[in-house]
Amino acid sequence: MKILIKNANLISMDPKKEKLQKDIDILIENNKIKKIEKNIQEEADKIIDSKNKIVMPGLINTHCHIPMSIFRETVDGLTTQNWLTKKIWPMEDKLTKEDIYYASILSYIEMIYTGCTTVNDMYFMQEEIVKAALDTGVRLEVSRTLMDSDGKGEQKLKELEDFINQYNNKYDLITLNVGIHGLYTNSEEYVEKGIEIAVKNNLKVNMHFCENSQEVEDIKKSYNVQSVVEPLEKYFKNVPLILAHSVKLTDEEIKRLSKLNVSISHCPVSNLKLGCGIAKISKMLEKNICVSLGTDGQGSGSNLDMFEEIKFCALLQKGILENPKVMPAYEVLKMATINGAKALGLGDKIGTIEEGKIADLIIINLEEKPYARPYNNIFAELIYNTKGENVETTIINGKILMENKKFLLSINPKEIYKKCEDIIKRIS
Amino acid sequence: MKILIKNANLISMDPKKEKLQKDIDILIENNKIKKIEKNIQEEADKIIDSKNKIVMPGLINTHCHIPMSIFRETVDGLTTQNWLTKKIWPMEDKLTKEDIYYASILSYIEMIYTGCTTVNDMYFMQEEIVKAALDTGVRLEVSRTLMDSDGKGEQKLKELEDFINQYNNKYDLITLNVGIHGLYTNSEEYVEKGIEIAVKNNLKVNMHFCENSQEVEDIKKSYNVQSVVEPLEKYFKNVPLILAHSVKLTDEEIKRLSKLNVSISHCPVSNLKLGCGIAKISKMLEKNICVSLGTDGQGSGSNLDMFEEIKFCALLQKGILENPKVMPAYEVLKMATINGAKALGLGDKIGTIEEGKIADLIIINLEEKPYARPYNNIFAELIYNTKGENVETTIINGKILMENKKFLLSINPKEIYKKCEDIIKRIS
Repeated sequence: MKILIKNANLISMDPKKEKLQKDIDILIENNKIKKIEKNIQEEADKIIDSKNKIVMPGLINTHCHIPMSIFRETVDGLTTQNWLTKKIWPMEDKLTKEDIYYASILSYIEMIYTGCTTVNDMYFMQEEIVKAALDTGVRLEVSRTLMDSDGKGEQKLKELEDFINQYNNKYDLITLNVGIHGLYTNSEEYVEKGIEIAVKNNLKVNMHFCENSQEVEDIKKSYNVQSVVEPLEKYFKNVPLILAHSVKLTDEEIKRLSKLNVSISHCPVSNLKLGCGIAKISKMLEKNICVSLGTDGQGSGSNLDMFEEIKFCALLQKGILENPKVMPAYEVLKMATINGAKALGLGDKIGTIEEGKIADLIIINLEEKPYARPYNNIFAELIYNTKGENVETTIINGKILMENKKFLLSINPKEIYKKCEDIIKRIS
Repeated sequence: MKILIKNANLISMDPKKEKLQKDIDILIENNKIKKIEKNIQEEADKIIDSKNKIVMPGLINTHCHIPMSIFRETVDGLTTQNWLTKKIWPMEDKLTKEDIYYASILSYIEMIYTGCTTVNDMYFMQEEIVKAALDTGVRLEVSRTLMDSDGKGEQKLKELEDFINQYNNKYDLITLNVGIHGLYTNSEEYVEKGIEIAVKNNLKVNMHFCENSQEVEDIKKSYNVQSVVEPLEKYFKNVPLILAHSVKLTDEEIKRLSKLNVSISHCPVSNLKLGCGIAKISKMLEKNICVSLGTDGQGSGSNLDMFEEIKFCALLQKGILENPKVMPAYEVLKMATINGAKALGLGDKIGTIEEGKIADLIIINLEEKPYARPYNNIFAELIYNTKGENVETTIINGKILMENKKFLLSINPKEIYKKCEDIIKRIS
């Protein structure tokens, strides 16, 4: 299958190229980007005219709980603790494998619709989450999450190893990491066992970290440390680590983190909505930490529209630092693309549009949108005036999954909406 | 002209009614809402089926600089001072009356497109801003802005009085207030003269206030006061006052402000983008101050999508107070509707959907939007998952200005985009 995208305004995120290249053609063959140049004269099975449109890498969401789509907007007016214990956990106990499958499909449809092509998930019943990803065609990094606070720790280690044996390196679209729920929900010994599995299988560790003040207190107490960074320095010296949230860190702790093989998944909307606070992202970038963006699950983060995370990320730092010069637009675009790819260990495959890389890309149309005109600065337009809704076409692994806002899926979204409404009715 | 809206999910914002009324019909006759009940059997010139859609009052933007649409995204990476002195002011000097007209039309198109039906403007060449509002059909509160720091203060007083004589109480869609640019840009004597004109004509005063730390210092110095509230207590005791921004206030100052006839126009996006900070909105609401929402001009605030201000407003307070219980969804909807109407002195005419009120309303369609399903909490859906893009139909003063995302205007938006691109090219 050959796809030829014509006359694009290309924002490739390739550091070797101009930030904006005009009137460029892109030839996709099978799942790869074969050629990027002006006026490509080659036959193709499919030609997409992108005159006056923007082509950019698909967005990469580095922290999510995919099946939580069904819990969207259940948190309003509650404390996090009440929401979890009185609403979410009792409902989660009732979820069947089929529920997880359909709730995941809803999230993948949302991703495709809003231009997100890769997601890093942390939840349970992963087989269903993987199956749904393969059935819709989105790129998924997935983990079986370790947590021993419920007394089922040993069983989970066994299940994790089985999961790795079954899924690692088996599918183009699926990569694995080892999910450790958090330091505060696991004993030191158990964390070490999780790391052992990660090292043995050459996988990264994916973990919640310092989401709120209470968690900081809990870590300090249970690990008997002065700083939350100490356990990371002790155990994670040689393991690549994706840390979600990392809201409550001091400048000194950020400096110490920068010495480890760590990337941060910043989830600004969820961090505000749950009343956690605002992570010091500008400081982290200053220390050359790889910061990417995540939506968190829709229960806390509302939706999977990465353009909203982009906007919040840029504006929050300017606001709290009282400095409009921080977070220039192009740097924020990097966080949502190539930084996300690097965080997931996929920097050589996705995150930029370059010849030889995998074709995960989106086409954005702002032409008829009064809220984006005139175009004075196209990068700032993408940060501040673009929504997932403006993504017209989504291509993942060389396959067109949405064109001109029409899904090209074997699944009917309306049926999925109905199924998910039925699930939430049944379990609430 | 009679319009009958059928089967709506009505969020009327009427405090006497259920927050959500299902399957309701709304009859509009001329510019008024004539009847709201189930199953209205009456002939109408136009029937709009709103099954599964949300009908709510049009959003009210209480702080804007309408013609600044053309300066969208010119600020990225600059300090406010550099942006103003090196970019904006030299460009503004070159603006013709025709430029102001077309730039205003662009903003009004953006308002209609994103479901905002009323705007409070503060700029110059107001005749053109009014003409553009009348030509598109949006509701406008407008002022001729007083500022004597450029030595043309006396002339401006005269022009203001002429403007009031010419436009006050002349048009359904147009109301006036007296714009005083700010305390820091005007002498005490000049402020007093502005207030005199407001009192004489029974108008409100519309003023920037405490947008950033520098302004606070400037006010304290030039008015020789300990607190920025002192000049307000001295001069504005008996004048209704709309204060834009009000970012840098202490709890004590908020308490003192609550004793005056003051409403606050909160512009969260602009305040972040210019590095001003985050206003203490939750505290102001606690003190029963009427807080409404504004976008500011697109130069600083990016766009006129009030749904973005709504989302930022709700999330910022939760985040900085580290309390997810503050800013419940319905309270934030009030800020964008009835509070805006009250701020502009139009609380008896617009801001809710009630029999006898003016028909300024919008119809929202989330039905096919994966990022909004399932519907667990419709008010939270409006706050967190709705964008201006989801507004399907906009009615102002009983007139349909957009239906199913198609403008019903004598103006061609594409021509306006072209004209505005030409303006910015010419003056940059």
